[in-house]
Amino acid sequence: MKFLKNNLNLGMAAITVLAIATVPALAQDAAAPAVDKTAATAANVDYVFNTLLFLMAGFLVMFMAAGFAMLEAGLVRTKNVAMQCTKNIALYAIAGLMFWAIGYNMMYPGDDWIVADMVGKFLPVTMPDPAGDTANAYSVGSDWFFQMVFCATTCSIVSGTLAERIKLWPFLIFCVVLTALIYPIQGSWEWGAGWLDDMGFSDFAGSTLVHSTGGWAALAGALLLGARHGKYGPNGEIHPMPGSSMPLATLGTFILWLGWFGFNGGSQLALGTLENASAVSKIFVNTNMAACAGVVVAIILTQVVYGKVDLTMALNGALAGLVSITAEPLTPAIWQAVVIGAVGGVIVVFTVPLLDKMRIDDVVGAIPVHLLAGIWGTLIVAWTNGDANVVTQAIGVGAIGAFVFISSFVVWAFLKFTIGLRPTLEEEIEGLDKAEIGIEAYPEFGTGSQRI
Amino acid sequence: MKFLKNNLNLGMAAITVLAIATVPALAQDAAAPAVDKTAATAANVDYVFNTLLFLMAGFLVMFMAAGFAMLEAGLVRTKNVAMQCTKNIALYAIAGLMFWAIGYNMMYPGDDWIVADMVGKFLPVTMPDPAGDTANAYSVGSDWFFQMVFCATTCSIVSGTLAERIKLWPFLIFCVVLTALIYPIQGSWEWGAGWLDDMGFSDFAGSTLVHSTGGWAALAGALLLGARHGKYGPNGEIHPMPGSSMPLATLGTFILWLGWFGFNGGSQLALGTLENASAVSKIFVNTNMAACAGVVVAIILTQVVYGKVDLTMALNGALAGLVSITAEPLTPAIWQAVVIGAVGGVIVVFTVPLLDKMRIDDVVGAIPVHLLAGIWGTLIVAWTNGDANVVTQAIGVGAIGAFVFISSFVVWAFLKFTIGLRPTLEEEIEGLDKAEIGIEAYPEFGTGSQRI
Amino acid sequence: MKFLKNNLNLGMAAITVLAIATVPALAQDAAAPAVDKTAATAANVDYVFNTLLFLMAGFLVMFMAAGFAMLEAGLVRTKNVAMQCTKNIALYAIAGLMFWAIGYNMMYPGDDWIVADMVGKFLPVTMPDPAGDTANAYSVGSDWFFQMVFCATTCSIVSGTLAERIKLWPFLIFCVVLTALIYPIQGSWEWGAGWLDDMGFSDFAGSTLVHSTGGWAALAGALLLGARHGKYGPNGEIHPMPGSSMPLATLGTFILWLGWFGFNGGSQLALGTLENASAVSKIFVNTNMAACAGVVVAIILTQVVYGKVDLTMALNGALAGLVSITAEPLTPAIWQAVVIGAVGGVIVVFTVPLLDKMRIDDVVGAIPVHLLAGIWGTLIVAWTNGDANVVTQAIGVGAIGAFVFISSFVVWAFLKFTIGLRPTLEEEIEGLDKAEIGIEAYPEFGTGSQRI
Repeated sequence: MKFLKNNLNLGMAAITVLAIATVPALAQDAAAPAVDKTAATAANVDYVFNTLLFLMAGFLVMFMAAGFAMLEAGLVRTKNVAMQCTKNIALYAIAGLMFWAIGYNMMYPGDDWIVADMVGKFLPVTMPDPAGDTANAYSVGSDWFFQMVFCATTCSIVSGTLAERIKLWPFLIFCVVLTALIYPIQGSWEWGAGWLDDMGFSDFAGSTLVHSTGGWAALAGALLLGARHGKYGPNGEIHPMPGSSMPLATLGTFILWLGWFGFNGGSQLALGTLENASAVSKIFVNTNMAACAGVVVAIILTQVVYGKVDLTMALNGALAGLVSITAEPLTPAIWQAVVIGAVGGVIVVFTVPLLDKMRIDDVVGAIPVHLLAGIWGTLIVAWTNGDANVVTQAIGVGAIGAFVFISSFVVWAFLKFTIGLRPTLEEEIEGLDKAEIGIEAYPEFGTGSQRI
Repeated sequence: MKFLKNNLNLGMAAITVLAIATVPALAQDAAAPAVDKTAATAANVDYVFNTLLFLMAGFLVMFMAAGFAMLEAGLVRTKNVAMQCTKNIALYAIAGLMFWAIGYNMMYPGDDWIVADMVGKFLPVTMPDPAGDTANAYSVGSDWFFQMVFCATTCSIVSGTLAERIKLWPFLIFCVVLTALIYPIQGSWEWGAGWLDDMGFSDFAGSTLVHSTGGWAALAGALLLGARHGKYGPNGEIHPMPGSSMPLATLGTFILWLGWFGFNGGSQLALGTLENASAVSKIFVNTNMAACAGVVVAIILTQVVYGKVDLTMALNGALAGLVSITAEPLTPAIWQAVVIGAVGGVIVVFTVPLLDKMRIDDVVGAIPVHLLAGIWGTLIVAWTNGDANVVTQAIGVGAIGAFVFISSFVVWAFLKFTIGLRPTLEEEIEGLDKAEIGIEAYPEFGTGSQRI
Repeated sequence: MKFLKNNLNLGMAAITVLAIATVPALAQDAAAPAVDKTAATAANVDYVFNTLLFLMAGFLVMFMAAGFAMLEAGLVRTKNVAMQCTKNIALYAIAGLMFWAIGYNMMYPGDDWIVADMVGKFLPVTMPDPAGDTANAYSVGSDWFFQMVFCATTCSIVSGTLAERIKLWPFLIFCVVLTALIYPIQGSWEWGAGWLDDMGFSDFAGSTLVHSTGGWAALAGALLLGARHGKYGPNGEIHPMPGSSMPLATLGTFILWLGWFGFNGGSQLALGTLENASAVSKIFVNTNMAACAGVVVAIILTQVVYGKVDLTMALNGALAGLVSITAEPLTPAIWQAVVIGAVGGVIVVFTVPLLDKMRIDDVVGAIPVHLLAGIWGTLIVAWTNGDANVVTQAIGVGAIGAFVFISSFVVWAFLKFTIGLRPTLEEEIEGLDKAEIGIEAYPEFGTGSQRI
């Protein structure tokens, strides 16, 4: 999802070629009106295709908000399900408003990326009038929409890790900072043509810029927030707290998988030429295969290691496969995509219990899936993409990781020592639905407060 | 969604321009075959894009049927969930059949809209053979599909308000009349180039034609049907009857939000030129932002007014924001879309309890969301669209409101005094799933008849 | 979904026409670069549209995996829901890997279909570099993706019939064989330009190739597996075992309905010309109307026959309508699509109880919906498509049925007599979630092992 530099060149070349192709023909017919923006000229065709890609991919990624909501609603206990639903619709709404008011212009300050310039762009986006929206090879609105849903995705990742023991308002305030400042600043370093882009760092659709960023922000929060009451016993015991609805978690995973075709496919940023259409297709295939491999590996490994297939691992295996291929879904051959996704599945199976051993309470497994598989996916770009090298990749991972973790930690710490992050123990035991939302998710059959 | 008059002109202009652009070039090559409908000429490109917009937007709006089903299944009690599911799939099927058999030709009688002409079009639609489908700048089938799913949406709105105390068959019979007659007749006044269109009334995607229409039909039904048993006490008490599944209600809202990109975006009715593609993009952005604003306002207001954030208000805030922007999603600047949607959120928070005070039992809040926010959205068109004025907008709101409310009231009254609208008190207490459907929604954990 | 022979010709013709149209104009301008694959030439426009159709239809069909998962999760008892979710995500992953490793090349061996040639193609697919992906009028990756999701759908059908009493691993092993060998071999006979295609057999989008194939494989498994414990009493009693969640079953049906627009619409295999765009539109309309008719017929019939409307029959009526129209969604007039779908609804209402009388335990009704309605849909092609005749259709149905049933039976029998198909009686009573997955679907409210 690099800021269209290469693709713009292609697009502009196409426009030039076709203007030449059609205008002379018109000129020979004196009766013909001048080619204008309302006509379906070939130059405009490229524009419409590119815009359509952003819109289609954008609505698929937007629907990922529903995927995260269902995944998390399924993986928390009934007493916290309404809270989780509230957080997910609220964070999407906040991401939209913040990315409009501040984020987008900060993230894409223009070709000459300097801090001063970024600050000068600290303004709400405005949309050009459709009749005059001709500055790029795509509509500004479609691009903004596509970028916005990425910002919302980053925020969704945080929500799951911190579930079941964070108050609503501090979480929402963090979302404001994340979507207005933290996400756009680090994003500008790469997709906004900043210093990481100049160095040659490569992150096609955001294994690092989106997924690891969400993961680092979640990790910082988890460390400051502590584990759920009763999760870890005094003698190192780990108490499983099974999620309330496996079908909702499964539905959420399928929705995320669906949305990922938009996430990775749309990040080609152009559709209107043969080469771009083929590239988007190849990205669809690789994205799908990495997820398939993640599922199969997680199923086989949990059977071998634990003696039973674990559904939540299979779901997280799919997601880890998807995150792993996100940094580079275009250059791998299919078998390479399979390998990259399979390793994602391995990471999930082995790091989910590891986090528990470290007493880091990650309710839905977002840190293994989005942070660790995101790092893996970013480093392995160098395997299939000749323009990337693993050192630069590691520098990008480290720089973004350090910035996001530290800035998130500061914000979480500020919230912790001002308004506080956690509800009271009584509220946590009773469930956040009653304490914070005043409504139960399943009033007729959830066990709510009867259960820790 | 005006019947393509302006857009058709653009489309036709495009075809002329491009035929000129390509045909001479062909003519110079004697060996070239004549340009025909099977070739990817530029003229055809516009046609394909427009058709694709209708198909893509159409399947998104079709999926809103699932959104309504989940929203309503989540907001009724377990004992009525299977009934609500049945109503939602049945009404979509009925809308399809009725809009084919009668509705579409009635709604779009042709340019010279007269009652006589409408009656003459009281016939099933037929689809032209694909090879001869050249009368418009888009495929007839794609337009029909897009219009049909709008008709179904109108019907879906009614279902939620009347939940938990209406028998299945009278509801389905009302759906037949609504989708065959009431919806198409009022729709023809505006989108069928009728008298409201001639007056200058403006309703881009149907705040009034779809959403208020559904709301008026629901209100008429609610008044004749009365409240659910036990909802209102003799001394003015209001007994909350919480919905059975907050995650399903959340899922339904996200699906509706997704579908709304098709609802509003597709109502541009054309995609194949730069200007149309940019317009669709701007519509996506404004639609999204109005919903975001509705959510945030509902969250803040419920926190301030009630001391706790209310999830169902947040969900309805999103929907009210979406309904509010539907009458004019193209002309507002983003900040104006935010304001328009935010007021939608305000409307929901304050009118949901108001209806309860008036003892109008609206199970899912469809009247505030679709009727009241729909009126607001229609009136405010005059703020951003220079071609609209608030008096004409009010006339349109009033005329359609009067027609739909009165005609719906007559149909509901006829049904009430013939086959009856309500099940017996015993059946209502036991739940409509057992009484009418013979199947429980959650046989293993719903509390069903044990609970009022 | 015939292997693009006709459509390819159209596509190639279009490319020729347009190359002629644009290249001379370019040639007259010496400064113009040569037309290349990166330019938005008219030739490329057709390619992009066709590719986009595959991608869009492909993601819709991919989402059908979620539809099957929700339908089945809703129709089994709580104690087997997590198992059903696991099977559905696993089978989709397996289908992807197997159709890549073996299936696709076997199914589409090239124009000269011979067994030897097929075996020679027993290799993983590779994707061409996007810049060189010019061998067809669409991107190879987009076609592969579209074909792959069809393969996965076939596999999904089997999962529902055999629910609640099959072990996980034998099921997954069967999926490997089905998606690597059985599905591609029979598919090659028709869509791979094999002998059924040469005979004139016609199956537009797979009533037989996908749906009956899934149904035959499920039937073979059901016969060898036997019924669920307690389903049929010793004196011919039939014990209903109601599904755990009607809203999830409804959601699944709506998702499948949505996906079917991709399933049938995408099977036109081309979009980039006026005629193809109109054909896809007509297919959308007919697909929708057949489903509507299936719902309405099922509702009326269950009311008349049983005295109550049955929601599961309404859902299966929609699906049967969809399966019925799948063999030929293009040639019927709308009223014919309505009739074809309506008969699908009739089939479901009368054959679901018939199977129970024959003591064939089909948990979700997949055999009536996919096998019987699939046969009906395939035979009735001759009514509306002048190129088909009912004898050839019957030969195709019989040949594919015999091959799939026998080969599936052999595989199921092999599994039965080696690793075994069924869990122990105790495990089945306790529920497969605990026995096989080690996780409960609804740990806080499912009744699990307390209930048979």
